[in-house]
Amino acid sequence: MKKTVITISREYGSGGRLIGKKLADELGIAFYDGELLSLVAKESGYTEEFVRRNDQKKTQSLLYHLYIGSQILPASDMIFIAQSRVIKDLYNKENCVIVGRCADYVLRGYEGVINVFVTAPFESRIARVRDEYGEKPENGNFNAYLTKKDKSRIAYYSYFADDAWGKVQTYDISVNSDIGIDKCADLLAQYIKEKIGE
Amino acid sequence: MKKTVITISREYGSGGRLIGKKLADELGIAFYDGELLSLVAKESGYTEEFVRRNDQKKTQSLLYHLYIGSQILPASDMIFIAQSRVIKDLYNKENCVIVGRCADYVLRGYEGVINVFVTAPFESRIARVRDEYGEKPENGNFNAYLTKKDKSRIAYYSYFADDAWGKVQTYDISVNSDIGIDKCADLLAQYIKEKIGE
Repeated sequence: MKKTVITISREYGSGGRLIGKKLADELGIAFYDGELLSLVAKESGYTEEFVRRNDQKKTQSLLYHLYIGSQILPASDMIFIAQSRVIKDLYNKENCVIVGRCADYVLRGYEGVINVFVTAPFESRIARVRDEYGEKPENGNFNAYLTKKDKSRIAYYSYFADDAWGKVQTYDISVNSDIGIDKCADLLAQYIKEKIGE
Repeated sequence: MKKTVITISREYGSGGRLIGKKLADELGIAFYDGELLSLVAKESGYTEEFVRRNDQKKTQSLLYHLYIGSQILPASDMIFIAQSRVIKDLYNKENCVIVGRCADYVLRGYEGVINVFVTAPFESRIARVRDEYGEKPENGNFNAYLTKKDKSRIAYYSYFADDAWGKVQTYDISVNSDIGIDKCADLLAQYIKEKIGE
């Protein structure tokens, strides 16, 4: 198999992580999502718990850092740098699927990188977060909960990748997961096989 | 076959029109692109030549219209209104593929509408525009020519649909046409069959 690293960006609750896992299994390649965090902890020297707490959060404003008189890079920036290094190491090491963490941006221009985005309608995302992930937002307000998650992903991508999140041109393929997790993974596997000519 | 109307949005030079035509053939449904313009002419009372000249152009600024003291809606607005009516008529009349013209926006919320976006890398688009469409921009500057086309599509969509063009969430599926026109059409046909459950 040719050099193939697939990045998966996804709306929260779209099932993108599950699709990524199935896709990796179908293609017989490695899968990194939460697994990445322990590698990042090793690389950065932070504890895994600290990395997890600061994962995919954008940095506080510069003003805040000036105010507290910080002389060093904020933790989320340090973690992003360690994470980027880990992602590049994984690229060099093996074919794999990497979920989230601006991997599409970190690996921009690298040969054999295929960028995927998974979307889903708002209502389907609420249903998945409630019924499958079993999450319980404050006051049971799933609307506000999901909207906040979206804003946080937009802010994270905008801060680190300096670009708008979810521009169709950034991805090789995007798909609405409402056809089902398995069918999405099959469709993506087919696209990827066409793409790498296998 | 269930009610199915497919809208195709596409970057200029991505081959989206060709893919739409093949997709319509594969699914055995009607195809509308330029064909739409003669229907719009009939609906609006403008000549076909006039419609063609103002097709997919956004309106001049309000200031310009105040300056020339216009009392009626500008031509591009009138054409957009006629076009929207034609698109809704087609939706009611038959299953079909409709290319461009903010059809995804015009039919937002209509049952059985599937929105597709076709992208392609800038270099591939230049090659297609030059070698297949045989276009000859001023001074042979394809970069500037394509950039202007992109800007014009962004402005047209933003003016009429009041939204950013090419947001991944707007589309059921988006695909980079570099895997080839036929393979793209096949992949989209497969997605659509899954989507409508056939």
